[in-house]
Amino acid sequence: MIDPIRVGVLTVSDRCARGEAKDLSGPALAQLCRERLGAAIVVTACVPDDPATLEAKFREWSRADQRIDLVLSTGGTGLAPRDHTPEAAMRVIERPAAGLMELARARCAAKTVRTYLSRGVAGVAGGTLIVTLPGSVRGATENLEALLDVLPHAVETLRGEVQDDGRPDASPTSGRVIVHHD
Amino acid sequence: MIDPIRVGVLTVSDRCARGEAKDLSGPALAQLCRERLGAAIVVTACVPDDPATLEAKFREWSRADQRIDLVLSTGGTGLAPRDHTPEAAMRVIERPAAGLMELARARCAAKTVRTYLSRGVAGVAGGTLIVTLPGSVRGATENLEALLDVLPHAVETLRGEVQDDGRPDASPTSGRVIVHHD
Amino acid sequence: MIDPIRVGVLTVSDRCARGEAKDLSGPALAQLCRERLGAAIVVTACVPDDPATLEAKFREWSRADQRIDLVLSTGGTGLAPRDHTPEAAMRVIERPAAGLMELARARCAAKTVRTYLSRGVAGVAGGTLIVTLPGSVRGATENLEALLDVLPHAVETLRGEVQDDGRPDASPTSGRVIVHHD
Repeated sequence: MIDPIRVGVLTVSDRCARGEAKDLSGPALAQLCRERLGAAIVVTACVPDDPATLEAKFREWSRADQRIDLVLSTGGTGLAPRDHTPEAAMRVIERPAAGLMELARARCAAKTVRTYLSRGVAGVAGGTLIVTLPGSVRGATENLEALLDVLPHAVETLRGEVQDDGRPDASPTSGRVIVHHD
Repeated sequence: MIDPIRVGVLTVSDRCARGEAKDLSGPALAQLCRERLGAAIVVTACVPDDPATLEAKFREWSRADQRIDLVLSTGGTGLAPRDHTPEAAMRVIERPAAGLMELARARCAAKTVRTYLSRGVAGVAGGTLIVTLPGSVRGATENLEALLDVLPHAVETLRGEVQDDGRPDASPTSGRVIVHHD
Repeated sequence: MIDPIRVGVLTVSDRCARGEAKDLSGPALAQLCRERLGAAIVVTACVPDDPATLEAKFREWSRADQRIDLVLSTGGTGLAPRDHTPEAAMRVIERPAAGLMELARARCAAKTVRTYLSRGVAGVAGGTLIVTLPGSVRGATENLEALLDVLPHAVETLRGEVQDDGRPDASPTSGRVIVHHD
């Protein structure tokens, strides 16, 4: 990885947005990203479970001029009446990556089968990978931990630095060639 | 769980709807729900594999005045030319829950890998969780059994009785607080 | 299986389409289909990663008059900027079969967890099953191998030769009854 992964962390919580609860999940995700991915947290926000607000935030953070590689949201992925983070994300995502959440759920199932009730989705909008994680500190961090080993390669591929199959991209249109070691 | 889960069982079968075959899968699902979930079967129906009929039935049963927590359909989830239950369900589902069928398929695969040919989907419409199960008695019951341990929590969450992460909901907007024990 | 599975193999690669690289993945898939499924490769093509071209090709090959049971594409399923094979396929697919790629990813994960970065999809358009495989020879062949044991039954079901649950279809509307042995 040449440049640190640029991450935005979005906390989705009515109570945190109203100031009735302290946001613990967002900071926990940010810390994991810094310590385990060497990532730069370039923006954070806390918004209520409002579909239009959520969609606008996902759209803003995936704009090219923001240069955010990875948007991690926490909250609103469950079955509760006001959980609609995945739907807001899917209105912005252009290229779904279903496998990422399959992996997160399969790995987290060893701790609790309830992970399969998370409706979290992942996918690409512009040059940004969006991943919607559960709202609890434990759910958010366990799901992110389940993805840590594939996220650097995902971001490199998304940036056009390597190809699908892990070989550096030698295409004349790619502009730069970066050797990748596991 | 305070109130019993209110279940609707929808059998999707051209032959059963024409009276040429006896519906065994619907009653088998109803029995499992009563015995293993303590559920109340509030409605059952048998319809042909007609997309418009299916969509109308899913829509009717997820209306708020029906107060159905869980709609289980059986049939029409495969690859046969007249199988389109998942498509009909997805036109009604507002919030997909992909993880539920991932769980069902992963657990049922121990018995037969063909479970991965089921195109079954799950998700929420209004206050109702819709799950589309295979048509054979064995396929339907094995898939439902694979979900039995998570369905009560799913329904509680959907009703707003608990939050995503299993804690009782203490939000001032929720109106009631119910303590939940596993 | 009465008649051999009729397969179309579509290589999706800018460099192969420009003649800058030799297509190895397409021929590798064709060979696997012949040797392991006894399939007939009825058409092959190599196209660039252009969404409109891809969509047109999937649409053409799933037309009833082509009588293609199975379209296998290789390439364009990753996260790279020009990877959009799954989106092109999904615009043609009428009945998604999410379980097939769940199975492929779960089985391939034993070799590399990066298989979960493949955004490959599967589903039915008309009478044709479309499966989008990764672009590397290894990724394409490993994913196809992961599906070999379920593909014959999938095609038989799609043709209307057997039902969802593996019993021969005795419906008076099906026209023919074929006994199926595993």
